[in-house]
Amino acid sequence: MAAIRSIAFSGSPIERADQIRVDDDALAAQMNWRARVLKLDGLNPVFDEMGALEWGTLADVAEDAELCFLGLLEGKACFAAVPDQGATGPAYANPQIWAAMQALQPGELATYGGARSLVDWHARHKFCARCGAVTRPAKGGWQRNCPDCGAQHFPRTDPVTIMLVEHDGQLLLGRQPRFPARMFSALAGFVEPGETIEEAVAREVKEEAGVTVRNVQYIGSQPWPFPSQLMIGCYSVTDDPDLTIDKTELDDARWFTRDELEASRAAGPEGTDDLLFPQRFAIAHQLIAWWLDK
Amino acid sequence: MAAIRSIAFSGSPIERADQIRVDDDALAAQMNWRARVLKLDGLNPVFDEMGALEWGTLADVAEDAELCFLGLLEGKACFAAVPDQGATGPAYANPQIWAAMQALQPGELATYGGARSLVDWHARHKFCARCGAVTRPAKGGWQRNCPDCGAQHFPRTDPVTIMLVEHDGQLLLGRQPRFPARMFSALAGFVEPGETIEEAVAREVKEEAGVTVRNVQYIGSQPWPFPSQLMIGCYSVTDDPDLTIDKTELDDARWFTRDELEASRAAGPEGTDDLLFPQRFAIAHQLIAWWLDK
Repeated sequence: MAAIRSIAFSGSPIERADQIRVDDDALAAQMNWRARVLKLDGLNPVFDEMGALEWGTLADVAEDAELCFLGLLEGKACFAAVPDQGATGPAYANPQIWAAMQALQPGELATYGGARSLVDWHARHKFCARCGAVTRPAKGGWQRNCPDCGAQHFPRTDPVTIMLVEHDGQLLLGRQPRFPARMFSALAGFVEPGETIEEAVAREVKEEAGVTVRNVQYIGSQPWPFPSQLMIGCYSVTDDPDLTIDKTELDDARWFTRDELEASRAAGPEGTDDLLFPQRFAIAHQLIAWWLDK
Repeated sequence: MAAIRSIAFSGSPIERADQIRVDDDALAAQMNWRARVLKLDGLNPVFDEMGALEWGTLADVAEDAELCFLGLLEGKACFAAVPDQGATGPAYANPQIWAAMQALQPGELATYGGARSLVDWHARHKFCARCGAVTRPAKGGWQRNCPDCGAQHFPRTDPVTIMLVEHDGQLLLGRQPRFPARMFSALAGFVEPGETIEEAVAREVKEEAGVTVRNVQYIGSQPWPFPSQLMIGCYSVTDDPDLTIDKTELDDARWFTRDELEASRAAGPEGTDDLLFPQRFAIAHQLIAWWLDK
């Protein structure tokens, strides 16, 4: 089966160099005048005059800033500082994010996304969930330790299934209340404790659309940094296309023909009168395109 | 590609019934004399005289217990109470866990595993990671809310890649320092913010064994409730079998022939003089068996 291509937020050129994270001396040795620090405006990217990510030096960072070691790029250590505040609103409401996604080269978008998830996690996890004490970063920003109870905390990545459902040559797509007008996309939902990816896909489709699926297949994955999901793209089929839509989750869901989907994709960012294709940064776009092209 | 079979901790017969979680009235209506509460000894299972999971009623639970709604089983609401303390040591050190895994039917093992992950998360997340205040459970135990800063917290599931690497008809397996003597298993590591499943597989194999892989393929997944991982099983190949072992992570790693692996599997729980096969509850067992049988 052909893999999906052009996954936004993947392909960072930074080598994570985890052997440096766990070695205090090696990490200290990287914190020199050559080190680069990703410039951020809160959690938003800062662009240089060429429209690339702007980097500063450790001299630009406050003395008491919490620094995360992103890894090595062309032999130079790359860091990002934890902002005062983590994400407060949804990313889709923020025009600077969408501008960044338009402007950045794929590798840079991946570097930004990974750094954003990490520093945002720190900003929203300064206290120990086990005992309430103030925690301290460790291992180059890939851990936080509680000095009171000894608990160790790690950056979070939440697995989310996102799935195509096919019946008789048509695809099931739904729209969430927050979507722009006419936009439909693949159904999606968090994997919960105690279920496989395949079980999560089946449960979500049943919950949201009342449809029973079989033959769940993994297609591809994407890191989604708002705040830190691992999108797990799947394909499945159903024998019974009758829909029972969960109106607390979805505004609407319906079956789309290949022709409708092709027309919408061809129409680009404006879509057709009936359908706006998911934007190309979302794995939903790549999944539907994969289905159309396979 | 054939799917892997018999994934331990999957296949719970409980219907999660998320529409009840989000509806306070519906949830309250389920908290009646018919409701069943999973008996736990701390985080360990309690067995009835038939060796099945033992269930009590809401009358067995302390007045101030935090209850998690697991879902519906044969129309009856199932709950589990949050213990005073979450997991303190590694599961593999606990003989009661291994006894449970031997004793329970697959569906019951899945019910126990999902419940264990959920109540353990509550026990270890009573405080708000954003502000340090005491949080309160919400949505039937599928959320905790902070009354001070308004943050919402959700049960955690950590994606972990676990991968076979093939070269010239042999498989790369490694052993962690904590493994029993002679046991080797598939390499594994957490998916980090900012990477796809495929990137995580390639990074882990490079970090732990110095090997560059290509053609990463997803094979199957497993929920692993110690404390709450989503194991994502993959297969990959390499063109260069030279190993550079990260001794901080692994005691050893080496290539195994099909004959060595077949002999070890055939030898069962005692293994051969050279190799103890991963135990059958681990997805590593199913992955290697899938490779031997394909």
